[in-house]
Amino acid sequence: MRRIAVLTSGGDSPGMNAAIRAAVLRGIDKGLEVFGVYNGYEGLLEGNIVPMKRKNVGGIIQRGGTILRTSRSDRFKLEESQFEAIRKLKDLDIEGLVVIGGDGSFKGAMKLCEKGLPVVGIPGTIDNDISGTDYSIGFNTAVSTVLDAIDKIRDTAYSHEKTSIIEVMGRGAGDIALWAGLCTGAASIIIPEAAYQIKDVITRIQAARERGDKDCIIIVAEGVCSAEEIKKELQEQIQLETRVVVLGFLQRGGTPNAYDRMIGSQMGAKAVDLLLDGNHGSMLCVKDGKITYSPFEEAAKEVHEIDMSLYQLALSLSS
Amino acid sequence: MRRIAVLTSGGDSPGMNAAIRAAVLRGIDKGLEVFGVYNGYEGLLEGNIVPMKRKNVGGIIQRGGTILRTSRSDRFKLEESQFEAIRKLKDLDIEGLVVIGGDGSFKGAMKLCEKGLPVVGIPGTIDNDISGTDYSIGFNTAVSTVLDAIDKIRDTAYSHEKTSIIEVMGRGAGDIALWAGLCTGAASIIIPEAAYQIKDVITRIQAARERGDKDCIIIVAEGVCSAEEIKKELQEQIQLETRVVVLGFLQRGGTPNAYDRMIGSQMGAKAVDLLLDGNHGSMLCVKDGKITYSPFEEAAKEVHEIDMSLYQLALSLSS
Amino acid sequence: MRRIAVLTSGGDSPGMNAAIRAAVLRGIDKGLEVFGVYNGYEGLLEGNIVPMKRKNVGGIIQRGGTILRTSRSDRFKLEESQFEAIRKLKDLDIEGLVVIGGDGSFKGAMKLCEKGLPVVGIPGTIDNDISGTDYSIGFNTAVSTVLDAIDKIRDTAYSHEKTSIIEVMGRGAGDIALWAGLCTGAASIIIPEAAYQIKDVITRIQAARERGDKDCIIIVAEGVCSAEEIKKELQEQIQLETRVVVLGFLQRGGTPNAYDRMIGSQMGAKAVDLLLDGNHGSMLCVKDGKITYSPFEEAAKEVHEIDMSLYQLALSLSS
Amino acid sequence: MRRIAVLTSGGDSPGMNAAIRAAVLRGIDKGLEVFGVYNGYEGLLEGNIVPMKRKNVGGIIQRGGTILRTSRSDRFKLEESQFEAIRKLKDLDIEGLVVIGGDGSFKGAMKLCEKGLPVVGIPGTIDNDISGTDYSIGFNTAVSTVLDAIDKIRDTAYSHEKTSIIEVMGRGAGDIALWAGLCTGAASIIIPEAAYQIKDVITRIQAARERGDKDCIIIVAEGVCSAEEIKKELQEQIQLETRVVVLGFLQRGGTPNAYDRMIGSQMGAKAVDLLLDGNHGSMLCVKDGKITYSPFEEAAKEVHEIDMSLYQLALSLSS
Repeated sequence: MRRIAVLTSGGDSPGMNAAIRAAVLRGIDKGLEVFGVYNGYEGLLEGNIVPMKRKNVGGIIQRGGTILRTSRSDRFKLEESQFEAIRKLKDLDIEGLVVIGGDGSFKGAMKLCEKGLPVVGIPGTIDNDISGTDYSIGFNTAVSTVLDAIDKIRDTAYSHEKTSIIEVMGRGAGDIALWAGLCTGAASIIIPEAAYQIKDVITRIQAARERGDKDCIIIVAEGVCSAEEIKKELQEQIQLETRVVVLGFLQRGGTPNAYDRMIGSQMGAKAVDLLLDGNHGSMLCVKDGKITYSPFEEAAKEVHEIDMSLYQLALSLSS
Repeated sequence: MRRIAVLTSGGDSPGMNAAIRAAVLRGIDKGLEVFGVYNGYEGLLEGNIVPMKRKNVGGIIQRGGTILRTSRSDRFKLEESQFEAIRKLKDLDIEGLVVIGGDGSFKGAMKLCEKGLPVVGIPGTIDNDISGTDYSIGFNTAVSTVLDAIDKIRDTAYSHEKTSIIEVMGRGAGDIALWAGLCTGAASIIIPEAAYQIKDVITRIQAARERGDKDCIIIVAEGVCSAEEIKKELQEQIQLETRVVVLGFLQRGGTPNAYDRMIGSQMGAKAVDLLLDGNHGSMLCVKDGKITYSPFEEAAKEVHEIDMSLYQLALSLSS
Repeated sequence: MRRIAVLTSGGDSPGMNAAIRAAVLRGIDKGLEVFGVYNGYEGLLEGNIVPMKRKNVGGIIQRGGTILRTSRSDRFKLEESQFEAIRKLKDLDIEGLVVIGGDGSFKGAMKLCEKGLPVVGIPGTIDNDISGTDYSIGFNTAVSTVLDAIDKIRDTAYSHEKTSIIEVMGRGAGDIALWAGLCTGAASIIIPEAAYQIKDVITRIQAARERGDKDCIIIVAEGVCSAEEIKKELQEQIQLETRVVVLGFLQRGGTPNAYDRMIGSQMGAKAVDLLLDGNHGSMLCVKDGKITYSPFEEAAKEVHEIDMSLYQLALSLSS
Repeated sequence: MRRIAVLTSGGDSPGMNAAIRAAVLRGIDKGLEVFGVYNGYEGLLEGNIVPMKRKNVGGIIQRGGTILRTSRSDRFKLEESQFEAIRKLKDLDIEGLVVIGGDGSFKGAMKLCEKGLPVVGIPGTIDNDISGTDYSIGFNTAVSTVLDAIDKIRDTAYSHEKTSIIEVMGRGAGDIALWAGLCTGAASIIIPEAAYQIKDVITRIQAARERGDKDCIIIVAEGVCSAEEIKKELQEQIQLETRVVVLGFLQRGGTPNAYDRMIGSQMGAKAVDLLLDGNHGSMLCVKDGKITYSPFEEAAKEVHEIDMSLYQLALSLSS
């Protein structure tokens, strides 16, 4: 293998640049020529592929987002597109591909593998909802961003003795909400993995008020419902006036923190090693606190599960 | 004058604690006993008034919000409430009052003055919309919070080449939006003080896109319309898919920055000096970069105006 | 067991408050009365022990340092002091103790155990140098603080094209230096675990300069030598003018990040469970990414080792 | 005037990029061709001058330091160098120059003016020590950086009940120390503008201790002496063990805050207007809270003075 390429796909996340940088530098260190594909699979189909030198990845480890940009591509789901993508790479003599993204991106990666292209995947999404890995690059930074925001909201919630409902990202997963709730002592945490009843939320708010909490916080994962819906229910049922904050895309950005730079760097380098060792058709993952890898097929079978013991802990600490 | 009290009223803002601290410490330094009123005018009516010692204001200068908490009080608009408030203070031999808040709070303060209570006002609101002063405590920190958020949103906007519409606070004033837009090079800034036409916004977005900007930002002040409305118009008129972030109460919180700690400290101390010098019935203000004061009546006559030369500058720098 | 106490000892670290909070809340949840010992073992000897209620741990999870304060106590090494400490606890019917601290603190804890007091330890130090655990509370936040500082130093280093030498904490361990170096792409990382030769440092600086890096960074762990010594050597050997920054105690403070709040909360709660289950004489630890525990004696035998594969990775990525 | 150039000189400061960006964009807006000179006067002598387009200043407003880099040039003090510099500019048909820097840089600028080149100066240094202006770009951000650091140091100082001595920048001026001290409630602030006696420092420390402060802070400006000297005196005179932190170059870096982006943007645009209006040989300044300008000669006569009323305020609030 003499030439490889890297792309980022799906939602961006902080730490993707650390992974890009590490893949490029490790590739160069191993004597390869490394290329960057802009705009994910869409850019691959358009042949938006450029050589990456050492200088192209200088000063990017601390930058949020992805310098290669990303996209969601519907047409890449077609077989003919996948063949076209392989052709674009072949035209440049590129023999291996590193894909940084989430479940959807890895489905595309598997299709390329099946058609003969060596591909290695790196899990990157703030939602931490990727099958087959305990951790995805960006999650920790996103939680930090949410904590910073809640610490700020708390100042003003305390000053007005208001209950705040904070809606956080996570798609179908409650990881961000759970961590944010546990790390801020939220009165109630509403996640897709645990059935929620408004009467329990009310009980917990009332307990917090009785204890004298002046800055009661409720966290709701976007995968359950909107914060506005909770607000409405609380208004109707107990005439409680609340304030809603929807953190939104803020959560995707920001300088990656140490953890995401570290995992990103390790995975980026390891992805190149796997390509060179012939271990392709697999994705990197964190298991038992260590970085390892498993075949795409096997990873796809595992369903990402939230750590419910953390949920129990959060309930017990804020009750 | 032997005893004075301090209260915060209306929306909280970062730096109010610096002002409280300075008023308490300056009062003690001048041989006064200083009291804190909790929950603004509402707490005043309830007699929620406690002595403030040096230790009560230790370690608060760096905290957001207000340790005295705040409220909006409808019943305080009644004359009988105002007399009741004065009685509550008289019962404790409190002869002077420092009110930290906005226009609405100062109306209440004037009423107390008219009824014989010496009051001095300190302008505090993130909106920077108070009559008679160029600056209100908390504005600078709020703008910093908005910049931090936009710098983060920009990472992900760049990665997806998306246009972002960011809704910021300010009530009827466009100050936060204008500063945020100028300081981030936003493509378009929509403020109440300048009529807006969607076609101009479109022209500016298109110009930014043509120049190659990949992270086009539009800032809209809440006083004009919601970000969702702009999103809808852009969708309808040019089929542009955009992302909306409503920063919300996040903007009210956070550690006060140097500027707000400084202005808060200066005004808090000066308010006590004014009470002692008999210059009550007035509010502190910033004029020509200096801290001074003017009678409530005169201040109320001046309408806070935005610096339109900054708006012109913002337009010219991002065109 | 009806009454337990918590203390923090040795150097403070961010996240200790999360552990204190969790221990207190879990204790209360289990029907215990929980006490806080101020100033570590020194305070224990002085009987500086107070009841901790729910409200005492409200709003502390986001605060750096330790609300219980800490100290280093020489006289606690004497047997008679240890008996005295147990007496002080007995006087208050306190039957179990949670000690949050480092290796030195755990030696004291073992002595108390040997004399019959149930004790559980929680590893807390930014240095991450505690025997028997992969992680100590505070390390992750300290690395974040170092990254923030280096990102700032980089701005000015780039502007002047200067080489910066940054001295970081860690006592005998190189963990902070290694993480900081890897996460910022430092040209050279000097740690106690790897013999260093100035000529290698020079080679790496020169390579960075040749590649066009304008903001060359060298990280040196305090356990090796001072940054000033490296500066002097570089001055003498290659007449390179460098800038030194010694980050110092800055690294110990700051709002704990998500990871430290999470580990602190889990360990704090678990420590109480261990006391109640009779698993005392042990410390909590992180192994294979999970929170578990092991007897003090066994933990003491294991020597904390740095992950040298990360060092190799750092070398290869910045070469 | 058809072509102008911009350079940064002396120590870098946050917000210089905002000024560069504004000068370039305003220049383009006025139909000029704008050039950037790299590495200050040194780069001017080497002819390191490149065209600046809109895209060259995209995404720089939020970056610390200066993208044009900077230097100190001894040889530029020679007349022949100054003629050489003018020749380099003439060769490129560049007829006007914007110099962003401090007193030293403006001396150079005056020399170029005297030799016929239209030059406008923009005050930029974190030290805030430039003659003829109340404010220099970068000061506010530097103070913010110092506050962040002190807020962190405070956590650990509180935990150990230690007195901390913090050495801050400022060259001959005490502005950073004064603001930092006032904004953190430091027990003692040692600045060049006020004679200091160690016995006063001791009195203030002891008063703070007696009041129960557990995190006593002393700020010393580098222009007075080193923090180590104060530490030694306190050790000798009252056997007080203290901790020293020298913040160093950290203070020069960091994302410019709102204030510095705003002042930088206004001055950058205004500098171009002054060149076009023939008002050269002058520097921009802040007076009475407004942006204005004055001739280099007049500015040089005024000595920058610290606001001693702030020093008195700081003393009174922390006594």
